[in-house]
Amino acid sequence: MAETMKGLILTEKGKVALGERPIPKPGPLEALVRTTCVATCNTDHEIVEELIMPPAVGRFVGHEGVGVVEAVGSEVQHFKVGDRICVPSLTPSWDDITTQKGWPQFGRGGMAFDWCLTRDGTFGEFFCVRNVDMNCAKIPDNVNDIQAVMVTDMLSTAWNGVEKSEIEIGNSVVVFGIGPVGLCSIGAAILKGAGRVYAVGTNPKGAELAKMYGATDIISYKDGDIVEQILELNGGAVDVSIVAGGPASCMAQAITMTRGGGSVCSVNAFYEDVVIPVASWNSGMKTQTIKGHQCTGGRDLFERYLAMISIGRFDPEPIVSHTFKGLEGLEDCLWAKKDADCIKPVCVL
Amino acid sequence: MAETMKGLILTEKGKVALGERPIPKPGPLEALVRTTCVATCNTDHEIVEELIMPPAVGRFVGHEGVGVVEAVGSEVQHFKVGDRICVPSLTPSWDDITTQKGWPQFGRGGMAFDWCLTRDGTFGEFFCVRNVDMNCAKIPDNVNDIQAVMVTDMLSTAWNGVEKSEIEIGNSVVVFGIGPVGLCSIGAAILKGAGRVYAVGTNPKGAELAKMYGATDIISYKDGDIVEQILELNGGAVDVSIVAGGPASCMAQAITMTRGGGSVCSVNAFYEDVVIPVASWNSGMKTQTIKGHQCTGGRDLFERYLAMISIGRFDPEPIVSHTFKGLEGLEDCLWAKKDADCIKPVCVL
Amino acid sequence: MAETMKGLILTEKGKVALGERPIPKPGPLEALVRTTCVATCNTDHEIVEELIMPPAVGRFVGHEGVGVVEAVGSEVQHFKVGDRICVPSLTPSWDDITTQKGWPQFGRGGMAFDWCLTRDGTFGEFFCVRNVDMNCAKIPDNVNDIQAVMVTDMLSTAWNGVEKSEIEIGNSVVVFGIGPVGLCSIGAAILKGAGRVYAVGTNPKGAELAKMYGATDIISYKDGDIVEQILELNGGAVDVSIVAGGPASCMAQAITMTRGGGSVCSVNAFYEDVVIPVASWNSGMKTQTIKGHQCTGGRDLFERYLAMISIGRFDPEPIVSHTFKGLEGLEDCLWAKKDADCIKPVCVL
Amino acid sequence: MAETMKGLILTEKGKVALGERPIPKPGPLEALVRTTCVATCNTDHEIVEELIMPPAVGRFVGHEGVGVVEAVGSEVQHFKVGDRICVPSLTPSWDDITTQKGWPQFGRGGMAFDWCLTRDGTFGEFFCVRNVDMNCAKIPDNVNDIQAVMVTDMLSTAWNGVEKSEIEIGNSVVVFGIGPVGLCSIGAAILKGAGRVYAVGTNPKGAELAKMYGATDIISYKDGDIVEQILELNGGAVDVSIVAGGPASCMAQAITMTRGGGSVCSVNAFYEDVVIPVASWNSGMKTQTIKGHQCTGGRDLFERYLAMISIGRFDPEPIVSHTFKGLEGLEDCLWAKKDADCIKPVCVL
Repeated sequence: MAETMKGLILTEKGKVALGERPIPKPGPLEALVRTTCVATCNTDHEIVEELIMPPAVGRFVGHEGVGVVEAVGSEVQHFKVGDRICVPSLTPSWDDITTQKGWPQFGRGGMAFDWCLTRDGTFGEFFCVRNVDMNCAKIPDNVNDIQAVMVTDMLSTAWNGVEKSEIEIGNSVVVFGIGPVGLCSIGAAILKGAGRVYAVGTNPKGAELAKMYGATDIISYKDGDIVEQILELNGGAVDVSIVAGGPASCMAQAITMTRGGGSVCSVNAFYEDVVIPVASWNSGMKTQTIKGHQCTGGRDLFERYLAMISIGRFDPEPIVSHTFKGLEGLEDCLWAKKDADCIKPVCVL
Repeated sequence: MAETMKGLILTEKGKVALGERPIPKPGPLEALVRTTCVATCNTDHEIVEELIMPPAVGRFVGHEGVGVVEAVGSEVQHFKVGDRICVPSLTPSWDDITTQKGWPQFGRGGMAFDWCLTRDGTFGEFFCVRNVDMNCAKIPDNVNDIQAVMVTDMLSTAWNGVEKSEIEIGNSVVVFGIGPVGLCSIGAAILKGAGRVYAVGTNPKGAELAKMYGATDIISYKDGDIVEQILELNGGAVDVSIVAGGPASCMAQAITMTRGGGSVCSVNAFYEDVVIPVASWNSGMKTQTIKGHQCTGGRDLFERYLAMISIGRFDPEPIVSHTFKGLEGLEDCLWAKKDADCIKPVCVL
Repeated sequence: MAETMKGLILTEKGKVALGERPIPKPGPLEALVRTTCVATCNTDHEIVEELIMPPAVGRFVGHEGVGVVEAVGSEVQHFKVGDRICVPSLTPSWDDITTQKGWPQFGRGGMAFDWCLTRDGTFGEFFCVRNVDMNCAKIPDNVNDIQAVMVTDMLSTAWNGVEKSEIEIGNSVVVFGIGPVGLCSIGAAILKGAGRVYAVGTNPKGAELAKMYGATDIISYKDGDIVEQILELNGGAVDVSIVAGGPASCMAQAITMTRGGGSVCSVNAFYEDVVIPVASWNSGMKTQTIKGHQCTGGRDLFERYLAMISIGRFDPEPIVSHTFKGLEGLEDCLWAKKDADCIKPVCVL
Repeated sequence: MAETMKGLILTEKGKVALGERPIPKPGPLEALVRTTCVATCNTDHEIVEELIMPPAVGRFVGHEGVGVVEAVGSEVQHFKVGDRICVPSLTPSWDDITTQKGWPQFGRGGMAFDWCLTRDGTFGEFFCVRNVDMNCAKIPDNVNDIQAVMVTDMLSTAWNGVEKSEIEIGNSVVVFGIGPVGLCSIGAAILKGAGRVYAVGTNPKGAELAKMYGATDIISYKDGDIVEQILELNGGAVDVSIVAGGPASCMAQAITMTRGGGSVCSVNAFYEDVVIPVASWNSGMKTQTIKGHQCTGGRDLFERYLAMISIGRFDPEPIVSHTFKGLEGLEDCLWAKKDADCIKPVCVL
């Protein structure tokens, strides 16, 4: 086997270039994966353009990827060479007390992208995965690589947040955002029994997909105040709000339009403080559950989610708007998300 | 308005006959309903043939019914004459501490069928409903009477039990029974995100409907041991079992084939003791949640469930196999359920 | 029986005076109570000095009170003349769909103080209670009036919020505030199995009581940054934070010092927006449960809480720092809370 | 260091003898512990007298033990030589998907006692612990060895079951059994806010301890039917039942005397089928949560529980009725539990 691999290196702030890196050797609990498909989300831009994770410089970029197991460490039990696997964007160590406290995603390697800090990213010929038995899932035969790469971050982020939002059958649900995470959130709300689903967004292509995934109403700020529109259509406050896109002010809108005792869950990343408006929060007594959720991850979760694609209950592939090919497609894939027309770009290797 | 109404009276053990009864006057929180559609389930046979609720003699039979509000009591806030309403088979008083303890269905008028004890049943031209504001829901315009009568007991019994079974997206689920409650349970499991759904039953028509409602596998005792078949197909224990039909031994099978930490919920009525087999219960340490559930009821719940039919996410009408007409159809409707070929009979008035 | 009753009337903004009002007649579900003990909290000052509920002008003030049933409405089942009863500060109607959605406290008469809008308050010889069967609890013989009046608002507000905060045995808990609600929150945290309990406050008398109720550490801003002190003492983030006093900035501190996946619950009233600091909220991905809770109320809850005093597991009486007597003591009781030295004033009638 | 260690070997069915065994070497995630205190429970008798786990023959007996870390494997992060540690009776591997499904105790090494199948037990000079970082907790300085050994199985079994029983403040609770697990269950019910606590048992010493730990009533079959006595004292059904001892019929009694919607949890081991009586189970519609619980274990849990002893909120030492000394005390300790007078025997090495 060769000793080096090609991939897209973050060379300096704002710049990437194809280059070579040594092929890593998997540790006892790790797997080396031959990349077959990768994808880009906004966080990649933050890392490349804002250098929010400085150690990433000099390494391959990318945190969403699927592939085929090329080699496994000595202690790996569940995977073997040749397995097609779905690799979560976050791969905590699962050997930490956080696992027992119910937030394994905050364990070692969790909150920060492991590859940024210690490894090469997914935008190369190979990448190495921490604790593969606990983090990764085999991809069912009838699930393709593009579907699977959508699960690594977009779908799992959305679905796990929605799973934790306690939707009851027939509940009214608002989803802020009709990008990839928003669209997957709409789908998850339907999968958990939502009744009327209001999708907030303006992108025409996103709106079309939102309807396809089950949104009953598309709400645009162009038609007036978001909160007022939804309160009127719904005949009052909604049961559950999911914030899957937009600025911090969406949280205030969500809290305002969700009923007392209801649930507000964000699966978004914010870059500014969130303000809870005292007036519409009943002076602090609205008795809602407010969460800023991060996917807990784990093999069980990824197996469950992939099963839904395999059985045919959900297909994330229509969310992919741009498909690139080969190593030379990686940089275009990286920047494609800047295109207003782009919902989700992937690159097939 | 006339002073008497016609309907099917339980005259003596095992016998019914059309007859007349005084039209009741609604109390302050009650409504008088002009019946438009009724349905029969096995409990009606128990009441007529076994006299399990003796005060029912001399009164109209029937506990599933929908209709149009004919008159309302002085304190009714939410309903008015002319409203089409869905009336739950159990109508507790909601003025009891059980409401606050989370099991309103055990409040006054809950556990026992109110009409058997103090009122005429639904198999007549009119019937009177206790605490209509808290118990009943308006039927959406695009939901027909046959769909709505399915919600009064079969669908609400099934769906509420499944809602309380904590299905996670992609979980494997077994449903025992492919009668009306079983079929609605399969549908509810899908609505709550189930992955693979095993339906246990042999009736060919039921099996066909089970597939239509989302069962991925139909399991019959004719093909071998139920537990062994499912463990093999599923590659091990399932996450959740719903017992929606069958004898008490189904509970033992469900406990056996459900994983440690999983959930077993019955929405069935049993007439014999349930045995938890110590061996497959890990000597009492299998850490499952075992429930025998009764629908908690209430307007909110019925509004949520009817909304799902209105939006088009579920249609119970295909479960109705036999439709009768008019007062003269009531007795045939009552006995139709004895026909092996019958899934669910209704009578349209 | 006399036709008028004496009490403390809110005559104009900022002013109160003893006067007479007609004795109300209880409706069918109501009770007339002869007042035996009342208490004051800050909300009374807001109502009197800021007129935040304008209809209160011309009526008796006061929302905390216990007494003896003088008369009951025709539909009352659970109470009879002569019963000593504990009356919650909020008495919703329980005949609303909010009851079924799990937030009865938002039902009719819930969020707003019923007496401000339609009735006289508790600071008089008699007051009338809405839906007494669902709202009130009999006071056990060995619980005195002063203990019981503490349950009407302070203790029930605190305990219900803590009950909803999912404390596990041995969890570390921070309680902001060592006034009456804070002290009851400390006690509730202990009752639910808290391990180390950090009480945040400076009042020396409050601090002494905090220790008596189980706080292991008293944290004062005078000794340095609250967050830093607690993180150091606790060896890292705490499991649960309860905000039972202080300005909105306490919420930001609580979110910061509570671990990922932990719980932050306010039982406070805020008069300014709450800011969730993005940096210590992991950009929205800290996966905490954040609540602004209001007591759900109800007879069951009040019976449970009073039982704990009766059995001897908790005694709120030491929180009462000032005791006044008779009608002529009402005004002093009202203003006593302004005294820096005052923890909780009551007036015994 | 010596190559062999002395301890109590299970030589053949029903027989034990002091003997020597090779000192094991800890694997990468393991620790070797120098035993300081061990204890016996009924399961030891089952293993010795009934050979329910045949591989135990030829090895040291015992599954409850605490000690001092003598050596650690290369990957151990949290413990070092000299640490006093509390070792759970079950030490699963935590590297299995069961961890993610919420029942780690069923993972590799969980359900079966690891030491019976592959290791020497705790009744010797040393023993080796699987995955020490995830399973064990340091013993706080002010917690003695006897207190700590009570946590390894009795206290943790009881407390974890009670934690999962959703006791609300002031709930009425029945605890079946006043042996070590029952006594710890009573204590846990109090720690979680129980109001009235009925302890079922006849042993006078146990009854005395039950009162000390907070039971308000001691119920003996000698005074009449258990169910009738409790229903009368409680004025109706209780909220929660904990079965911590007794035959399978206790489950039927618990289900009968617990209210609809209530919780019944066993932390007991059964050796016969459990029968759910259909009549008192409302034909399967009593809507209770029934559990047969096994402690989920883990360092976090043991740290939390030990903290409660350290802070002074619970002391398990009074449960220890017999204390033996040294290697020569081990066999007496093993059989002491047969003595009717014995609540819990320990042996200090």
